[in-house]
Amino acid sequence: MDTIANIEGIITPIVTPLKGTDELDVTGLEKLVEHVIAGGVSGIFVLGTTGEFSGLSYRLRKELVERICRQVDGRIRVLVGITDTAFIESVNMAEKAYSSGADALVAAPPYYYPTGQPELIEYYDRLLKQLSLPLFLYNMPLHTKTILEPNTVSAIAVNEKVAGLKDSSANMVYFRSLQYAMKDHPGFRLFIGPEEIMADAVLLGANGGVNGGSNLFPGLYVELYRAAKLRDFERLELLQKKVLQISAMIYSVGRYGSSYLKGLKCALSLMGICDDYMTEPFHRFKKEEREKISEALKTINEGLAR
Amino acid sequence: MDTIANIEGIITPIVTPLKGTDELDVTGLEKLVEHVIAGGVSGIFVLGTTGEFSGLSYRLRKELVERICRQVDGRIRVLVGITDTAFIESVNMAEKAYSSGADALVAAPPYYYPTGQPELIEYYDRLLKQLSLPLFLYNMPLHTKTILEPNTVSAIAVNEKVAGLKDSSANMVYFRSLQYAMKDHPGFRLFIGPEEIMADAVLLGANGGVNGGSNLFPGLYVELYRAAKLRDFERLELLQKKVLQISAMIYSVGRYGSSYLKGLKCALSLMGICDDYMTEPFHRFKKEEREKISEALKTINEGLAR
Amino acid sequence: MDTIANIEGIITPIVTPLKGTDELDVTGLEKLVEHVIAGGVSGIFVLGTTGEFSGLSYRLRKELVERICRQVDGRIRVLVGITDTAFIESVNMAEKAYSSGADALVAAPPYYYPTGQPELIEYYDRLLKQLSLPLFLYNMPLHTKTILEPNTVSAIAVNEKVAGLKDSSANMVYFRSLQYAMKDHPGFRLFIGPEEIMADAVLLGANGGVNGGSNLFPGLYVELYRAAKLRDFERLELLQKKVLQISAMIYSVGRYGSSYLKGLKCALSLMGICDDYMTEPFHRFKKEEREKISEALKTINEGLAR
Amino acid sequence: MDTIANIEGIITPIVTPLKGTDELDVTGLEKLVEHVIAGGVSGIFVLGTTGEFSGLSYRLRKELVERICRQVDGRIRVLVGITDTAFIESVNMAEKAYSSGADALVAAPPYYYPTGQPELIEYYDRLLKQLSLPLFLYNMPLHTKTILEPNTVSAIAVNEKVAGLKDSSANMVYFRSLQYAMKDHPGFRLFIGPEEIMADAVLLGANGGVNGGSNLFPGLYVELYRAAKLRDFERLELLQKKVLQISAMIYSVGRYGSSYLKGLKCALSLMGICDDYMTEPFHRFKKEEREKISEALKTINEGLAR
Repeated sequence: MDTIANIEGIITPIVTPLKGTDELDVTGLEKLVEHVIAGGVSGIFVLGTTGEFSGLSYRLRKELVERICRQVDGRIRVLVGITDTAFIESVNMAEKAYSSGADALVAAPPYYYPTGQPELIEYYDRLLKQLSLPLFLYNMPLHTKTILEPNTVSAIAVNEKVAGLKDSSANMVYFRSLQYAMKDHPGFRLFIGPEEIMADAVLLGANGGVNGGSNLFPGLYVELYRAAKLRDFERLELLQKKVLQISAMIYSVGRYGSSYLKGLKCALSLMGICDDYMTEPFHRFKKEEREKISEALKTINEGLAR
Repeated sequence: MDTIANIEGIITPIVTPLKGTDELDVTGLEKLVEHVIAGGVSGIFVLGTTGEFSGLSYRLRKELVERICRQVDGRIRVLVGITDTAFIESVNMAEKAYSSGADALVAAPPYYYPTGQPELIEYYDRLLKQLSLPLFLYNMPLHTKTILEPNTVSAIAVNEKVAGLKDSSANMVYFRSLQYAMKDHPGFRLFIGPEEIMADAVLLGANGGVNGGSNLFPGLYVELYRAAKLRDFERLELLQKKVLQISAMIYSVGRYGSSYLKGLKCALSLMGICDDYMTEPFHRFKKEEREKISEALKTINEGLAR
Repeated sequence: MDTIANIEGIITPIVTPLKGTDELDVTGLEKLVEHVIAGGVSGIFVLGTTGEFSGLSYRLRKELVERICRQVDGRIRVLVGITDTAFIESVNMAEKAYSSGADALVAAPPYYYPTGQPELIEYYDRLLKQLSLPLFLYNMPLHTKTILEPNTVSAIAVNEKVAGLKDSSANMVYFRSLQYAMKDHPGFRLFIGPEEIMADAVLLGANGGVNGGSNLFPGLYVELYRAAKLRDFERLELLQKKVLQISAMIYSVGRYGSSYLKGLKCALSLMGICDDYMTEPFHRFKKEEREKISEALKTINEGLAR
Repeated sequence: MDTIANIEGIITPIVTPLKGTDELDVTGLEKLVEHVIAGGVSGIFVLGTTGEFSGLSYRLRKELVERICRQVDGRIRVLVGITDTAFIESVNMAEKAYSSGADALVAAPPYYYPTGQPELIEYYDRLLKQLSLPLFLYNMPLHTKTILEPNTVSAIAVNEKVAGLKDSSANMVYFRSLQYAMKDHPGFRLFIGPEEIMADAVLLGANGGVNGGSNLFPGLYVELYRAAKLRDFERLELLQKKVLQISAMIYSVGRYGSSYLKGLKCALSLMGICDDYMTEPFHRFKKEEREKISEALKTINEGLAR
């Protein structure tokens, strides 16, 4: 089994099942956790972008971390997102993760004000002093308005507590430049956010993916990871087509930039795994969109069966 | 004295004096509150962008609201920012504001995920149902990545609890279009964020400004407001030059987009009002920049004395 | 009559009437020129953003400049846009403008590659050496991806050939900061692009507007300019409402960011002034949108008659 | 030898050697063309972003196309960029390319005004009607402000004259989504702009790269292409490191977003191939930066020798 220092493969950025504002869908969450573990993923990332972390109350965030750590019980790794605009709240969440038995933390830059690169280096330096668990950096420029530039990452990673980085930029020049900047840090681990390019990044040396679709079809992403790792191009392209189909059919119904989140939760609900209630300002799909997702799931499942 | 329904003039987006991470500079805060009240402002806006709200722990945010409400004690209006990515935390802060005796609330859109206009209408509709105080909308596209479009504002403002809007976009076409869209809501109040154009907006019908510089020189901004309100152009242009000088000399030392916040806090510290400790990821100015601000203050004070 | 050195009031950024790809609607152009002169404008700006300059062949640009200069024949000022990505083509167009008898030139920064501020200073310095006519700078960040920062403008304006600047940013903090940076260049003239805030800027010291709507209703914009200049607030707000109505009803039919251009040309066509053929990649409005513009014109004309 | 229909490998986006404003460095150009042909590239792309197309006069653009076609004389393929804001000028350049004996054309969307996707479909449809040579689309969102979305490409590519697409977005989710959208157009050819990810894209099915660095070291990029095509991972990673080194050392000296262009031309000048005069608003590197590039070249050449 993986330790954090050598973790690889698929880490599920777990969806947060909700029954209402500030109310966890506990049964749904339990089913979802077992579903992804059964699918062979190496870890769960709680409180990520896919988990709607920023829309959850702090009370619920803590309940969620506690429940998942208890249920997983060491079977796979648990990573906890501590991204926050307030330093103290990041530290508080990190302590909760530690006391709950999580394995690692994940932190993107603070995201309300724009931040300069030297400020980011100091920020992570101060944050790392407060942490008892290994930390993964999280490059998510779309939401944080700032890029963790390769030289910045390299300066931050001098601290041994830095385990690696999750890159959700989709920019492969960034990925390659980061690899180059980190060429003398062999232990530094790289995970890729967008599932459409997870296999590609693994071919090029990434250690795995943190892919939303693994909430739905964990086995597919685990297999695709393995095909990439083994450089089995034929199998890779076959599985890659299914991943691209999921992206094209599940994540692009509806509008306003949240169609990914809505499609994912709607599909989980249709699969009988959990409720599709969403954090404000988002709303679950209505009948018409739900039917489209239902049709899409049929098409995808037929393809997977083959 | 103004009620919220007819408030006008200058509202100070109050700086949050800190002694360290998560520790309020209580004495500094008391001095600052008396300083701005003595300067003649009509209200204090707690937990705004200038108050570094997003970098403060929830504990400190509540302490701050409580202390300010108690100290102000009805002498001027207190508005409390409840902008948050998590709906429940906005509601919690609104309840704290209400129980502390604040007069009104201010809320920008949630700011982690991108949001569509119809989603904003539903969001504010649900939020307003939970509020016991009047609400000002807050248009701050630079930080929230979304514009409160005029037609969206007009749809939200159907709810009587909506008292007005603070616009920090600096885009006067937006301001004029909003006025036009709200032409049938005579009670809707408009305040302008960027102090460089406060007087201009007041000339055109705005009810006042929410200007960071009024932490430093409250009387100057109050006088400028009055000159604009009276259409005393000569006086307006005289005072306007001083405001532009403050902007050019205090807010543009240093780099990385936070020079405004740093300059403001540094100047307050030099004036002996409060500490200049900042929330992460920002740091107070070092010696060299501090000297520049000190020189700037001298120049500005000489100008004000004339 | 105005010379370039003391020009003020409304300058019409003239629409380019076309009958087809690379074919001028000569009769339409003649009518349009007489229409705006009759309306009392102080100048015509040929080859601006509203004139679709970048979509016209160089042959047609030259024909256009020649025809307009000949027809205007000194009655009002003619300004010619020489904005180009290629230095030599800017110089060529400037020579054509000079030989045709134009009064001044207008140049935004080159707009394909991103440009730094020091590069802009050198660029304008080199360009000015090649020009025989006074030059207006053109701040148009939306299309050129670069802002002419106040300190950059102040450095460029050391050259006596620089007559002023047209600002189309809609950002009044920019406008105020530019005024402040240019406070020691009393002859420098400022014109404002977005018509929704032309009067506002004139109240604050701008010398006039370069407003697309003056193609349609030149007299309205001239009157509004005068009301602002005279600080006749009652008249200003009355006329301002009409300008905002034009903006709301004529420029926002259709989609894709070109609704302003399409609405303007469609309205001119409905008014019997010129053809509404557009440069690629744009197309004239179809029946449904044309009917909306027709209805809008009726409403606006009724308002203007009152 | 490749025809356009089955072209693969490296296409050099050729630098435009200049001796002054509007003056070609003819000897330099001849050397450069022979240099890249000797290095084994499959084609030359004239008038691309790397060739500073938008900064060249039309006269010089035509001279350049003519000279390169004559010199290449069928030994490799010549592709000519016809990207322009003016439709007629694109058509004119296409005719010049055809009459000069070029093999294909390349066109990005018009780049001054923002454009909608349906407008892009109509635009390319009209453009293709005027062309006598096969066309490659060019996705370059950084400079054109618009993305050629996968469904838009798929709609345009119904026309048989469309040979493929050059993608310079660096976004591999775009690349994978485009592949998926084009899965039923087997003849459609994909080339990748950013050299840092050329090999990666070839591994995933791209037909080659259009990489600026191949002006300097054509053989390196050709070898890297072959290693990727043969899935020789060991060799790929070895050569990839050199490409990343070139990117890190040659393209990041200097500032303002044009450091890539400046570094490339400076290196060619140091290698004795051509002059480093640049189109306005850019300037060649001065002594200090030139020395850095010189040092970088030494380091890189030592690495290449090994």
